[in-house]
Amino acid sequence: MSIALTGDRPTGPLHLGHYIGSLTNRLDMQNKYQTYIMIADTQALTDYFETPEFVRKNVFQVAEDYLAVGLDACDIFIQSTIRALPELTMYYMNLVTLARVVRNPTVKAELKQKSFAANAPCGFVCYPISQAADITCVQAEFVPVGVDQLPMIEQANEIVRKFNSMYKTDVLKESQAILSPTSKLLGIDGGAKASKSLNNCIFLIDSPEVVKQKVMSMYTDPNHIRVSDPGELKGNVVFHYLDAFWEEKEELAALKAHYKKGGLGDVTIKQKLIEVLENIMQPIRERRSKIDKKQLEEIVYAGCKKANEKANDVLYKVKDAMKLNYDIV
Amino acid sequence: MSIALTGDRPTGPLHLGHYIGSLTNRLDMQNKYQTYIMIADTQALTDYFETPEFVRKNVFQVAEDYLAVGLDACDIFIQSTIRALPELTMYYMNLVTLARVVRNPTVKAELKQKSFAANAPCGFVCYPISQAADITCVQAEFVPVGVDQLPMIEQANEIVRKFNSMYKTDVLKESQAILSPTSKLLGIDGGAKASKSLNNCIFLIDSPEVVKQKVMSMYTDPNHIRVSDPGELKGNVVFHYLDAFWEEKEELAALKAHYKKGGLGDVTIKQKLIEVLENIMQPIRERRSKIDKKQLEEIVYAGCKKANEKANDVLYKVKDAMKLNYDIV
Repeated sequence: MSIALTGDRPTGPLHLGHYIGSLTNRLDMQNKYQTYIMIADTQALTDYFETPEFVRKNVFQVAEDYLAVGLDACDIFIQSTIRALPELTMYYMNLVTLARVVRNPTVKAELKQKSFAANAPCGFVCYPISQAADITCVQAEFVPVGVDQLPMIEQANEIVRKFNSMYKTDVLKESQAILSPTSKLLGIDGGAKASKSLNNCIFLIDSPEVVKQKVMSMYTDPNHIRVSDPGELKGNVVFHYLDAFWEEKEELAALKAHYKKGGLGDVTIKQKLIEVLENIMQPIRERRSKIDKKQLEEIVYAGCKKANEKANDVLYKVKDAMKLNYDIV
Repeated sequence: MSIALTGDRPTGPLHLGHYIGSLTNRLDMQNKYQTYIMIADTQALTDYFETPEFVRKNVFQVAEDYLAVGLDACDIFIQSTIRALPELTMYYMNLVTLARVVRNPTVKAELKQKSFAANAPCGFVCYPISQAADITCVQAEFVPVGVDQLPMIEQANEIVRKFNSMYKTDVLKESQAILSPTSKLLGIDGGAKASKSLNNCIFLIDSPEVVKQKVMSMYTDPNHIRVSDPGELKGNVVFHYLDAFWEEKEELAALKAHYKKGGLGDVTIKQKLIEVLENIMQPIRERRSKIDKKQLEEIVYAGCKKANEKANDVLYKVKDAMKLNYDIV
């Protein structure tokens, strides 16, 4: 079975944006690949280094979300527990010039977005290199990414080729991106992206009451005042969510036509959306209610152990190729 | 007993320049401090990454040189065996901006010297950060350095202060430079520095025959043709070495006066130097002849074990302060 690696930064509970963007995709992956899911706490610390307790708190939150959506055939592990990762990163850092890493389009874009300017920490600038360590430490052959992350895979493969050719080995494996559709879910306020930092998303842990309240507050068409008014679909968040989550495409088309014509109230379409979302969220809630804290820990720790064994084996071969094979400690 | 850290990059056997520059100093240190000596193979790889077998070969060569000069009360360890080091480095990399590290005068000077220009590998640029890991992993309080390395200590202490204040801990200790006199030994060819890459130095492993041959080839005064000619001391390598190694300062003064006046041949002063050097090198050779390869390995591996225990303890506390304390693997 081929190996795949995916993961999230533990910077908050997962939300419907994750569900549509990556979690459903992983539900499919876990049957096709040996799938590792990395909870990237070390990477989260490259920009949340001032609030480690915040990152810590979210590690098991995210793990719980994984199990709640049904990701029970993956190996979930915590990045900071993998001792081979920083070692691999250090060795790879010799193979990448500073100029190359700063030119990486993903780094460039994120530096701009985070407005670090000249004050970017070294850890942040070098994160494509530590991502190469993430990918190679489990010998991942497939990595699902959005199109904006493609340069990261390219960078990792560059390191793999350079390492293997320089040290005359084949221990490192090139990986292939699985392009995931970048269907960004809008925020409930109509914002360009559902994001926990903007507090405009529906979390998988939200109760039915909270979901109802959030849907009821959704941005629709500000000119759609009376029920009889014709409504606008463009920018209408309720229809955006229905597009994303409602599988009955014919019924949805009919609903849209009715709304455009007039005579369909916002409350009605919102109730429909609540029903659609609850169909998805109810099973998640049910699975979550059965998760025992102790058992969750055991599952994650078993994943850490397995990933560590794999990564130590890769590191051993890497160090052997680099003549750093002192079998002493 | 206070802790001190010192070390060398394993890029060749040690020579008389090391002896006068640092080894004699360490013979003194090992009685005053708990002294760790790090054989910095990982650091050597930041610029010798294309020839790891060369670095590997020199690790035990350097260790043997240490024992041969009498450094038997230190803990000698190999940098690459300390698993905590890359981890500490990664965490410190979040606390140092790229701008800061590139502004480090030592890095600046070395980038220029190695003519990396824009092509410096990330590993090289970030090496002040990994040096901070070296120093802090054994909680070194004293680090002997030349004046050109002072910015490295300052950088390490900056990281210590930032880490301790950010994570509300006192696990990391500031260190203090022990300024070692930067008496650079000239090359036997009169070159500005005895250096193995210039092949102009006398190695501690050189046999009496090789020492004799090297001294006999030393640059003196090109205008001192006949014995009766007055000789020049300036730039005269034989007198430079006599100044460095001969303790009988009165006899040396008399010899110099005689040479300047004329009537003292180069062969005579060279024979004097050979005698002086042999007084130092003979005991080193004797100690070396008693070193058993197996025993040498055991000593170094015991040092690695001890340094690892210390470094793992520091790392444990560092991760605890950063809320990365998962005690699972």
